[in-house]
Amino acid sequence: MAQKQLPDIKKDFAQWYQEVIFKADLADQSPTRGSFVIPPYGYALWENIKDIVDDRIKKTGHKNASFPLLIPQSFLTKEAEHVEGFAPELVVVTHAGGKKLADPLVVRPTSETMIHHMFAKWISSWRDLPLKINQWANVMRWELRPRAFLRTTEFFWQEGHTAHATKKEAHEEVLLMLDEYVKFATNYLAIPVVTGKKSESEKFPGAQITYTFEALMQDGKALQMGTSHLLSQSFAHAFDIKFQDKDGKLAYPHLTSWAVASRLIGAIVMVHGDQKGLVLPPRVAPTQVVIVPIYKKDADNNAITQQAHALAKQLEERNIRVLVDETDYSPGAKFYKWELKGVPLRVELGQRDLQAGHAVVVDRVESNKQMVVFDNFVDHVVKQLDDLHNTMYQRAQKRVKTQRHHGERLVDFGPKLQKDAGFYHVGWCGDVVCETKLKEYQATTRCLLETNEHKVCFGCDKPSVTDVLVAKSY
Amino acid sequence: MAQKQLPDIKKDFAQWYQEVIFKADLADQSPTRGSFVIPPYGYALWENIKDIVDDRIKKTGHKNASFPLLIPQSFLTKEAEHVEGFAPELVVVTHAGGKKLADPLVVRPTSETMIHHMFAKWISSWRDLPLKINQWANVMRWELRPRAFLRTTEFFWQEGHTAHATKKEAHEEVLLMLDEYVKFATNYLAIPVVTGKKSESEKFPGAQITYTFEALMQDGKALQMGTSHLLSQSFAHAFDIKFQDKDGKLAYPHLTSWAVASRLIGAIVMVHGDQKGLVLPPRVAPTQVVIVPIYKKDADNNAITQQAHALAKQLEERNIRVLVDETDYSPGAKFYKWELKGVPLRVELGQRDLQAGHAVVVDRVESNKQMVVFDNFVDHVVKQLDDLHNTMYQRAQKRVKTQRHHGERLVDFGPKLQKDAGFYHVGWCGDVVCETKLKEYQATTRCLLETNEHKVCFGCDKPSVTDVLVAKSY
Repeated sequence: MAQKQLPDIKKDFAQWYQEVIFKADLADQSPTRGSFVIPPYGYALWENIKDIVDDRIKKTGHKNASFPLLIPQSFLTKEAEHVEGFAPELVVVTHAGGKKLADPLVVRPTSETMIHHMFAKWISSWRDLPLKINQWANVMRWELRPRAFLRTTEFFWQEGHTAHATKKEAHEEVLLMLDEYVKFATNYLAIPVVTGKKSESEKFPGAQITYTFEALMQDGKALQMGTSHLLSQSFAHAFDIKFQDKDGKLAYPHLTSWAVASRLIGAIVMVHGDQKGLVLPPRVAPTQVVIVPIYKKDADNNAITQQAHALAKQLEERNIRVLVDETDYSPGAKFYKWELKGVPLRVELGQRDLQAGHAVVVDRVESNKQMVVFDNFVDHVVKQLDDLHNTMYQRAQKRVKTQRHHGERLVDFGPKLQKDAGFYHVGWCGDVVCETKLKEYQATTRCLLETNEHKVCFGCDKPSVTDVLVAKSY
Repeated sequence: MAQKQLPDIKKDFAQWYQEVIFKADLADQSPTRGSFVIPPYGYALWENIKDIVDDRIKKTGHKNASFPLLIPQSFLTKEAEHVEGFAPELVVVTHAGGKKLADPLVVRPTSETMIHHMFAKWISSWRDLPLKINQWANVMRWELRPRAFLRTTEFFWQEGHTAHATKKEAHEEVLLMLDEYVKFATNYLAIPVVTGKKSESEKFPGAQITYTFEALMQDGKALQMGTSHLLSQSFAHAFDIKFQDKDGKLAYPHLTSWAVASRLIGAIVMVHGDQKGLVLPPRVAPTQVVIVPIYKKDADNNAITQQAHALAKQLEERNIRVLVDETDYSPGAKFYKWELKGVPLRVELGQRDLQAGHAVVVDRVESNKQMVVFDNFVDHVVKQLDDLHNTMYQRAQKRVKTQRHHGERLVDFGPKLQKDAGFYHVGWCGDVVCETKLKEYQATTRCLLETNEHKVCFGCDKPSVTDVLVAKSY
């Protein structure tokens, strides 16, 4: 087991990220440009995320369905803004079954067009509304500079698509799902987020309003964690979705869509990781507890093995995901491996511990060591996993506070932002000309804020109409 | 709610199938040729299948992972038989990101080539074996005559891929997963199956042995339900997968792959359905029990609604999937709908039932009506769902018996087989020349049997070396 140090997380965050995800088995390079292999450890993390999100999607009244991977290219062109947004990234099938296709097919970059085509077939009366559908799918957007989980040609996501009789109801849906996402980030990923509307130039192609939730990574860059869109009725017009309302009149429904993707794994890595490797939030970690028996050479270690499995069994009965590492590597190599992989709690169990009737419990966040007597072991572990979640959330929140600044004039805070990054809370006149000036500093508006504390726009001398969050981003 | 009759299941099975899957919301036509939309009802059925199969795959020591959708076309050509088998069905991406690709990519028709490429990276020592991976994925094989679930360009499946140090161990794996599949068909889908090896010409391109499990549909045609392959070492050679064995020598591992697909939904429809529509096996049915309150016009029906929900709640507590149909259609229209959708048990609850303290329970298989007192309601339903599973299995098994024949000479049984179909248990000399003669009658060998009861080959005068099952198939 090679124990080469990871790159310095403070000095070379990008390289640290790259190496930690491969070494910890979250992802692997594939021979297909821009696509990654997700090995079992990474996939188990994704399955845990998926199960929790899926449960909330179902409990809020949505039903899963599945739509074709390939979409006729002509569909994409039906909504003008939509095609303009996605055309440069399309992956196109031109040949199939040994022949050239008369009409090329694109691999879905998102499924609005296909799903709205079906909505037109499924919706005819107010009785068919609301229609609340979700799809778990792989989608594809060609990436020139791929980075695992953050920007990949193929990625996994859920895409919710709903239709409502009124705009008010559609807007409520958009906010409901945004709220579910924020709760998930807070309560399961231990990641604090900022929410708000995207600016006109940053919103989803074809949407009227895009809500986003953004998190700050340790290097001071923002990551868009997911979005929830109030689509304009233009999609309903483009796909001719109509329903007879209660008064017998034909009307166009109001549509929404919302998504989170495998990118959330990138956020987990970049918010919580440290110099030793991953630090996984306990509620989604594939392995929550690893038990390492410390064997004595040339001795009978049977009692240690038995006790390790007895403790594991007790944890399993409380639905804790636990693993006993019985491989024949040294304890030190095992500690290194499970720290790299970010397992929240490590339990050490040797001859002396056995005699003293306790186990040594070491947490991954602060490396605190505690002797825990066997009688109290399970209750202790259950509680400590909960505590760790809170510790991780608070630590992340503290970091955001130190990296969130107010800025007045771009010429003043721009160079600082360019160098040290962070969130910049500034005033904005709302003009895209000023927004474009941020590019000079590799920054963008992340979301509009509900406050208007700043009197003047960051980019010009006009008054500010809204505060806006500015940052460099992934 | 249109109540048009389904086509006659006895006279026009193909048309009956086509209509019942669309009317019962298992599938819907899509604008992408050969691909189908799976609406919520069909998708819920697939999720139930997937959850059960996934649980068994994990419990038998396999781990889920994910590999790219697109595979470099050159990979397919590495294993000679493999490329020959799949080349005609490939879906090819030639353009992406606005440019022509130097190397075209194919949408995976199956993932052996990609996964074996990764195995070569992941396997270096006997300590890395066995390596037991599974992937849930969408795959694509271009279909000229698509039929929902049976032959579709895009379909869903799980594909297991494992590597072992010895051929014996690999063979045990292949048989273990075949056995898991058979148990699943028997215990969850209520479908009796026949297992055996495929003939040389019918086996998977690149496999040494292909095991299949086959079921008989009501029209007498066979459906291949799934397969489990002992791959030759040729894949290990082609992808240069090597490991150092315990003696320090380099060796090639023995590989397996095995899969079941969304095609299982087609089997459920064609084995159990009847003139009224679907009949879903209780253990995978999206809705196991539907409660239909029978309201009196212009009366206070509140007590009925309350009791319906009270019963539903009791069932939910026992993990029964139940639905109270409170829509404002007539009871007759509701009965028609849920019969079409194949819900195993319907519960009727009217004013008189309420006063008598019972509910009327009607099963979907034999339409038996029973009055069940409320006190005994939940236990009764739980037991009846179990009984229904057994009834369905026995009914299907009885059908297979009447449709399984022994045949001696193809010239004699061929015309009968062509007309009435069914399984034909016959002797075979093992020569592909005789196997090819079956084509005249639109039949193929489905699997080799372990018996050798027939003295002479069905196709020539040579002695039989093995019995073989012959049938028309999907």
